[in-house]
Amino acid sequence: MTHDSTRPRLRLAMIGGGQGAFIGGVHRMAARLDDRFELVAGVFSSQAERNLATAHELGVDKTRCYANHEALLAGETPREDGAEVVAIVTPNHLHFPAALATLEAGLHVVCEKPMTLGVAEAERLARAAAASQRRFVLTHNYAGYPLVQHARALVARGELGRLRHVQVEYLQEWLSEAPDAANRQAAWRLDPARAGAAGCLGDIGVHAFQLAQFISGQRVDQVSAELSSAVPDRALDDNVQALLRFDGGARGMLWASQTAAGFENALSIRVIGERGSLQWAQETPNELWFKPLNGPSQRLTRRDDALSAEIGRGVRLPGGHPEGYIEAFANLYQALADDLAADEHSAWLPGIADGVDGMRFISAALASSQAAGSWTSLTQRGAPDA
Amino acid sequence: MTHDSTRPRLRLAMIGGGQGAFIGGVHRMAARLDDRFELVAGVFSSQAERNLATAHELGVDKTRCYANHEALLAGETPREDGAEVVAIVTPNHLHFPAALATLEAGLHVVCEKPMTLGVAEAERLARAAAASQRRFVLTHNYAGYPLVQHARALVARGELGRLRHVQVEYLQEWLSEAPDAANRQAAWRLDPARAGAAGCLGDIGVHAFQLAQFISGQRVDQVSAELSSAVPDRALDDNVQALLRFDGGARGMLWASQTAAGFENALSIRVIGERGSLQWAQETPNELWFKPLNGPSQRLTRRDDALSAEIGRGVRLPGGHPEGYIEAFANLYQALADDLAADEHSAWLPGIADGVDGMRFISAALASSQAAGSWTSLTQRGAPDA
Amino acid sequence: MTHDSTRPRLRLAMIGGGQGAFIGGVHRMAARLDDRFELVAGVFSSQAERNLATAHELGVDKTRCYANHEALLAGETPREDGAEVVAIVTPNHLHFPAALATLEAGLHVVCEKPMTLGVAEAERLARAAAASQRRFVLTHNYAGYPLVQHARALVARGELGRLRHVQVEYLQEWLSEAPDAANRQAAWRLDPARAGAAGCLGDIGVHAFQLAQFISGQRVDQVSAELSSAVPDRALDDNVQALLRFDGGARGMLWASQTAAGFENALSIRVIGERGSLQWAQETPNELWFKPLNGPSQRLTRRDDALSAEIGRGVRLPGGHPEGYIEAFANLYQALADDLAADEHSAWLPGIADGVDGMRFISAALASSQAAGSWTSLTQRGAPDA
Amino acid sequence: MTHDSTRPRLRLAMIGGGQGAFIGGVHRMAARLDDRFELVAGVFSSQAERNLATAHELGVDKTRCYANHEALLAGETPREDGAEVVAIVTPNHLHFPAALATLEAGLHVVCEKPMTLGVAEAERLARAAAASQRRFVLTHNYAGYPLVQHARALVARGELGRLRHVQVEYLQEWLSEAPDAANRQAAWRLDPARAGAAGCLGDIGVHAFQLAQFISGQRVDQVSAELSSAVPDRALDDNVQALLRFDGGARGMLWASQTAAGFENALSIRVIGERGSLQWAQETPNELWFKPLNGPSQRLTRRDDALSAEIGRGVRLPGGHPEGYIEAFANLYQALADDLAADEHSAWLPGIADGVDGMRFISAALASSQAAGSWTSLTQRGAPDA
Repeated sequence: MTHDSTRPRLRLAMIGGGQGAFIGGVHRMAARLDDRFELVAGVFSSQAERNLATAHELGVDKTRCYANHEALLAGETPREDGAEVVAIVTPNHLHFPAALATLEAGLHVVCEKPMTLGVAEAERLARAAAASQRRFVLTHNYAGYPLVQHARALVARGELGRLRHVQVEYLQEWLSEAPDAANRQAAWRLDPARAGAAGCLGDIGVHAFQLAQFISGQRVDQVSAELSSAVPDRALDDNVQALLRFDGGARGMLWASQTAAGFENALSIRVIGERGSLQWAQETPNELWFKPLNGPSQRLTRRDDALSAEIGRGVRLPGGHPEGYIEAFANLYQALADDLAADEHSAWLPGIADGVDGMRFISAALASSQAAGSWTSLTQRGAPDA
Repeated sequence: MTHDSTRPRLRLAMIGGGQGAFIGGVHRMAARLDDRFELVAGVFSSQAERNLATAHELGVDKTRCYANHEALLAGETPREDGAEVVAIVTPNHLHFPAALATLEAGLHVVCEKPMTLGVAEAERLARAAAASQRRFVLTHNYAGYPLVQHARALVARGELGRLRHVQVEYLQEWLSEAPDAANRQAAWRLDPARAGAAGCLGDIGVHAFQLAQFISGQRVDQVSAELSSAVPDRALDDNVQALLRFDGGARGMLWASQTAAGFENALSIRVIGERGSLQWAQETPNELWFKPLNGPSQRLTRRDDALSAEIGRGVRLPGGHPEGYIEAFANLYQALADDLAADEHSAWLPGIADGVDGMRFISAALASSQAAGSWTSLTQRGAPDA
Repeated sequence: MTHDSTRPRLRLAMIGGGQGAFIGGVHRMAARLDDRFELVAGVFSSQAERNLATAHELGVDKTRCYANHEALLAGETPREDGAEVVAIVTPNHLHFPAALATLEAGLHVVCEKPMTLGVAEAERLARAAAASQRRFVLTHNYAGYPLVQHARALVARGELGRLRHVQVEYLQEWLSEAPDAANRQAAWRLDPARAGAAGCLGDIGVHAFQLAQFISGQRVDQVSAELSSAVPDRALDDNVQALLRFDGGARGMLWASQTAAGFENALSIRVIGERGSLQWAQETPNELWFKPLNGPSQRLTRRDDALSAEIGRGVRLPGGHPEGYIEAFANLYQALADDLAADEHSAWLPGIADGVDGMRFISAALASSQAAGSWTSLTQRGAPDA
Repeated sequence: MTHDSTRPRLRLAMIGGGQGAFIGGVHRMAARLDDRFELVAGVFSSQAERNLATAHELGVDKTRCYANHEALLAGETPREDGAEVVAIVTPNHLHFPAALATLEAGLHVVCEKPMTLGVAEAERLARAAAASQRRFVLTHNYAGYPLVQHARALVARGELGRLRHVQVEYLQEWLSEAPDAANRQAAWRLDPARAGAAGCLGDIGVHAFQLAQFISGQRVDQVSAELSSAVPDRALDDNVQALLRFDGGARGMLWASQTAAGFENALSIRVIGERGSLQWAQETPNELWFKPLNGPSQRLTRRDDALSAEIGRGVRLPGGHPEGYIEAFANLYQALADDLAADEHSAWLPGIADGVDGMRFISAALASSQAAGSWTSLTQRGAPDA
């Protein structure tokens, strides 16, 4: 399918996303929606057979289906028509080596979260990104929803006055019971060797954290957390409760759970200031509630003329025509393509700084929980470690 | 972008959909989402300059950018790599000649609604389609939502018992005032020469009608209608009120309005039987309400295991990850591609019969309104006129 | 319990409302809530034993428990402490004789709807009321909700501009099946001898009609109706579909059903004008939606400072503290007490004119349905018949 | 107004509730609704003039309008027709002395929350109540909603399996700004001398706490809290964030705020177990969500046949006829009247044990907040101090 634009399509490679994976397919639909990318190469699986089968299904030439990321970079970088952007959609433990190598090879990166396994890796990657002059997009995809961006703009514009409270939660039910052995998604997400030291915290808690910082425009200074696991023999947390203190004076609470029976993918946030509040929920993403102090609540939609031109680029349909998860995800790819075409930086596009903050949050929450919930700083802000 | 399938992409041509059009771009995104189609040719505008500019934007080779549908068919049919499917997304008056010629040229058709300008054209096209052995998809896109299909399946399965009431409405506000002269969408939709004799009735009323028949599994026998226009000097109706009698015994009401201030794209339906009811609204398409008699209402979502495998093919994401208008639209293209690959017919896919019924409904509603709302039959059901 | 007011309590008699009745108990709670009435006498049942047992339960002296309304009026009017207000809560066929006699005896009336069995009785009662200088309150209780009154005020104030559409519906499920023989409520409501010629139409359709006129400030000129019954051997309609033409130019639709499986007491209304619309639903009565053209919808609550002082009298609690059906019902009694104390007339309080209009609507809808839905005038408006 | 019962009305006295008070009027409406109480005496204000004026308004004989609670008890206890029940609706600091004296005088108590100023007073009162054999009702009125009681029953019945998470919040906006000097409500609630050491915590946080224990059937063992105040020069907290550990293994979070701009009276709770969750919100009290694991959410209403007979006594209207705050409040008075008539104890009726737990929670939360959120036990459970 051709693209709705005269701009040439960017050549995309993918690491991860083999048969049975979830997020790889989402990245492909997101990249495809606006016809700005073309998938040309990949390492889709560490299993050779699955790797080739996926390449075949996706129409990727088998000569550009590589055994590992080193081979991919070695094969693609010399080509005139080699990949320009690499999407990294593997389990967590592979993000860092793949992303670092990609940046060092001079290609742009689109990377899944959590960015790395720890703070040191995150900071190492941040330095590499800064040195590389390449783009690094971290797929905190919920930031791609136009009304999330609008919420952020309303806060920044001062519509709520000084912020007081930030309440965020991310609830899923899918790990309420011990998963089937056949569930590939559950298998790696509950395995410390592949997921890292954080379970629910790293999988969805970090999304909630990023969203809270994204909309509030404030950064979390300190956290008091209680991690727990409801299911026997589970190595990682499946539930996170946390109190937050923000650098701009707001206080907040964060609840992330994968044992919240009855909830599918219930990410939601409320940001409350002196003069009103905003409320948004991912499962009904086409509405944003603005609740002014002492006045009637207002249901904002994508039709709202107050949407800035920048946000409007991510709106494909008139109000009342629902856009969803794929469209929001696609907005990250769209913004990257626009940015590269115009040599600009979309301020909202989540990137390396979100990743460093996210890893600091994970690290601090783990430490706090181990210390009976004592308030723990997200240290070394702005002071890169040596 | 490559496709998630080993099946080759279908070659698509488009008639209509030049710069400034709305629905052409939707068709392109819908066709692109699952990577099953490739746009190779088109007549994007009757204005030569706009036509070429659109082709350029879309990456269509200028030698396959044609002046009219006759030229397109003449140019494409001899080619080995010629278009296989033609999407017709023009103003209404051009649907019939383009679709007829396309079928006669042996290509498959995806056509916008209302299918034709009148019943005779519709029946003529039906005969042509039957003779051609080609596929004809009518983009009653709301049938593409998985939960709409699930509602239809629940009714067919008898979960509601015998149906009693079918209430459907489709409300928009965008024609509440006389539109700007620059509004290309409004211009043709309010011009009898291009839109036909029906305004709101043909534009959105026919969607509501199709949805009512689609979910209820009953056909409308008789209609009592009142058409009106709220804005001075408007040549066509902008509001439709109708009472319906269905062939299976249900009674219903239909309200379609483009002067419903405060409503964006509010298509909704309730189907009520002896033992319970179903309720669905397009602006919140990821939930379907099942309200059993004397029991608690249930909010069904796409996660519901009761979704049949056929419906499940149109679900790309787990529950709680919202899918929207583009995804539903894409399900029509996906089903066409699947059907052609497997030489099957998706029973739910709206086609020529929906188009004939739709034109009969439009015709009967116009007649009833002119006759002070007298009950008017949708005549000649199953009896093609000569 | 004593009253929150220095004003003396009004002495109330009740006709109807014996054991097993529904609405009589509601009237008593409503009258009691603000402590402005004292029940002193009654005819609670035509069965002597039930009559006395009810009086005993209610603490009414047995000497003031009468066999019929004639006896009640004969017994109470001579007493210095005799009843001042008579609440008539019988089956429909008794409203007229009891109300007429009460007015002629010089007492105030609170009467259930539908006011009479036909137009002639209604007009006769209207003349009697005019002649009597007594108050006549018709318990169209939904008008008692503060936000319904606020909706009416917003329309009157011109906030919506000229009205175009009025959509009202009243859905219940309780008659979806043939009721148990033991169901006293169903028994008289489905019996033409006691309910009159209209079933669902007279029981709840007339509420919907009154609400439409009440909020819109327009009167219905003509109706096109289709009455039907879904349950075998049911003598009266259980479903009403109607198109409406209002004297101010608005068009509307009315749907009332007692076979709407899955709906409990779903009265709702939308009033749409040039510049916006209002939406209210009885099951969530503490919110009123104001949907301006092209702008964000607003959720108005009782806290809204725009509530006029008159409306505010009927608000007993701050916003966020739900008020319900009883409170709204009580507002009719409260307004009557206030009116009598101050010798004023609350303009909103439903009365004899609502009753005459209601009977004309019932009569016209029955006639239209018998005439295949032909548009039928609500004749003799303002021209009392001889 | 007479009562719907042959049982004699209970004679009620009131301490507090003078002109300008809020909750006193609510108690009077609640006591009046079912006609089971008669207000006969009171101390409505410490200001003599206001006291008498209130008595006059309420129809209380001036000889039974007393200067203080000692005088009231001295005056009423010798009378044959003396008050039987005393409602205490004063500012917090007066609850303890009035309640203690009333119990010691042998009368039943209905008391506002928070029960006392501290744990020692609460335990002292508990001993007095136990010794007195009189009833002590604590108006945690939200427990009076039928669907709250139904939620509690569903949990107790094991419908959710073992509980994992209890999330409760109570949000108001009314103290977002420094209140007017004329605001009597705000004045005492923000004054440590009258409200106690807890502001928002004692005013609404304790309601949230009670609701969490009430529905979950578990008691809070430990709390980690952060109290704060958003408005300058405010002596007491206006915001409470807390993590909770329950004795049955559940974990929870509690947020109470009176600076939550945009929220009116938003008390809500979610209780989540292995097999499903329940969700209820006070502003829409006529629905209770049951969300089974991996299945469609269900909207339970008061019509649900699963409501036990005990709960059903507090339901006055069929489903779809909204009941609200006053009705729920009235259920406490109704249950007290029923209990006294039948010499029974309604297990659900909040009383002295809720008060002791509430004061221990307040005390522990204050201590935790002062200790940087360290986990603090609600000590001495079941072990009355000497």
